Amino acid sequence: MRALDLIGGTELMSEEHCWEFLASEEVGRVAEVIDGRVEIFPVNYGLDGHAIIFRTNAGLKMAGTFGREVAFEVDRIDETAHLGWSVVIHGDVQDITSLENPKRLEGPRPWSGDKDFLLMIRPRSISGRRVSSLS
Amino acid sequence: MRALDLIGGTELMSEEHCWEFLASEEVGRVAEVIDGRVEIFPVNYGLDGHAIIFRTNAGLKMAGTFGREVAFEVDRIDETAHLGWSVVIHGDVQDITSLENPKRLEGPRPWSGDKDFLLMIRPRSISGRRVSSLS
Repeated sequence: MRALDLIGGTELMSEEHCWEFLASEEVGRVAEVIDGRVEIFPVNYGLDGHAIIFRTNAGLKMAGTFGREVAFEVDRIDETAHLGWSVVIHGDVQDITSLENPKRLEGPRPWSGDKDFLLMIRPRSISGRRVSSLS
Repeated sequence: MRALDLIGGTELMSEEHCWEFLASEEVGRVAEVIDGRVEIFPVNYGLDGHAIIFRTNAGLKMAGTFGREVAFEVDRIDETAHLGWSVVIHGDVQDITSLENPKRLEGPRPWSGDKDFLLMIRPRSISGRRVSSLS
């Protein structure tokens, strides 16, 4: 069931629809506050049930994450048709590198070399919207 | 001139290359802290020289922005080829709605109906990287 957002041609997505969309994509963006500054970086991710899993190297990306809330966004935009989907999750980040769950350790394979840490975002909230052109 | 980032197959982009990339895209994501929470949302944007311009409605997106630093990210990911580009800008947000600069007021046309405010991000920093598969 979808609800229409009357402000500006966006259509709110059901939670079920949000998860279907997340399952169909593999690149998202993590936004977090590190040393008082908002940082944002793309990651390739996988799902473990209703949790987001991604790998990362140590360093900047790790510094502000553990136990703190981050935002995670996935979208699919068709710039020609002016149609798009965007799903945003808020949740805490956990280091699950040491967990010996084969499925989790298999995780999403990073494109850019080995990543030392396997992180999980457990959603506290999820929301999504579909944007379509009014013209 | 490009510099190789030896950690994990990413290639740092020159500032000039970052701007060329930004000029070739039209959808980015703004991340900011609103009421202590990181928010992230996609916008369609345009460039005015070396500044980012986008329109937005009043409300959540506006609440935390004026005069505060935000992060703005644009990427182009080829999920099949495992190739991607990502550029991140940090800068302050200004409300330029009332400025009678025709070029600015023309701005990027929002897809999802009328947006009341025209905002500008003036970059304090810009960085970009190209990610390629090592496999």
